[in-house]
Amino acid sequence: MTGLSNYFRTRAALVTGTVDAIVEREMSEVGVLAPTSAEDLVDALCGLIDYTNVANRTVTAARLVLFLEASHDPALREALARGRAAMEASAVSAFHRLGARDPQTAATAVMACAEGLILHRIARHDTADPRPTFELVVRAAVS
Amino acid sequence: MTGLSNYFRTRAALVTGTVDAIVEREMSEVGVLAPTSAEDLVDALCGLIDYTNVANRTVTAARLVLFLEASHDPALREALARGRAAMEASAVSAFHRLGARDPQTAATAVMACAEGLILHRIARHDTADPRPTFELVVRAAVS
Repeated sequence: MTGLSNYFRTRAALVTGTVDAIVEREMSEVGVLAPTSAEDLVDALCGLIDYTNVANRTVTAARLVLFLEASHDPALREALARGRAAMEASAVSAFHRLGARDPQTAATAVMACAEGLILHRIARHDTADPRPTFELVVRAAVS
Repeated sequence: MTGLSNYFRTRAALVTGTVDAIVEREMSEVGVLAPTSAEDLVDALCGLIDYTNVANRTVTAARLVLFLEASHDPALREALARGRAAMEASAVSAFHRLGARDPQTAATAVMACAEGLILHRIARHDTADPRPTFELVVRAAVS
């Protein structure tokens, strides 16, 4: 039983460390979102889609595999929740700066959009321009 | 080589058949989207999120695994493209009925949102209400 529990501690530490490293990498590339206009934010979001699916494509594919693994792994879900909280705080703060009426809903919507676009670029090799989608959602949130 | 090529034909037929069955199942549950108002469409989208993540949760998790598999499997991407085309046509037509200025962008945005929400409900066991997100995006598209 000691061996088994050591194994799980090591595995949990490994996946947690991996998730933390992936989040740090994405956050440091995109930076803290500090847009001065809706156009600025749309540019940053298009940059995020490009980064995650080109330069960082292998890591993004690994992240998505870990996401599905998390569906039946509570320790992994905890690690994902920390990463999510950091990214969500950055998005909520960006919409707050831009004067959105409901920064939380705006952040949730734009993050869901980004995640859906990222998944389909990895899975289906989708190449549609993400800009019109982000323009629609960001303008709706900020207008 | 004959054995190998037979194997691939069988495997391709299996995954293609699986994807087609998943798409049929989702389409028959959600039905052709025929909303008479933005509120109607928001209700249908909330229903889709609930169906995919509760009644159909195991199938949805399998679909997402197949999506990641598709990233390096051209035959699987082709099957996914057919499913995507059917769902997108239904969404574009719904936004057209509702008088959206740009039904294609509206459909792309709402489908990306739905997919992002579905993935995080499976992966992180996210339980946030999807309604505010869909209200934001559908209203923006239709107003």
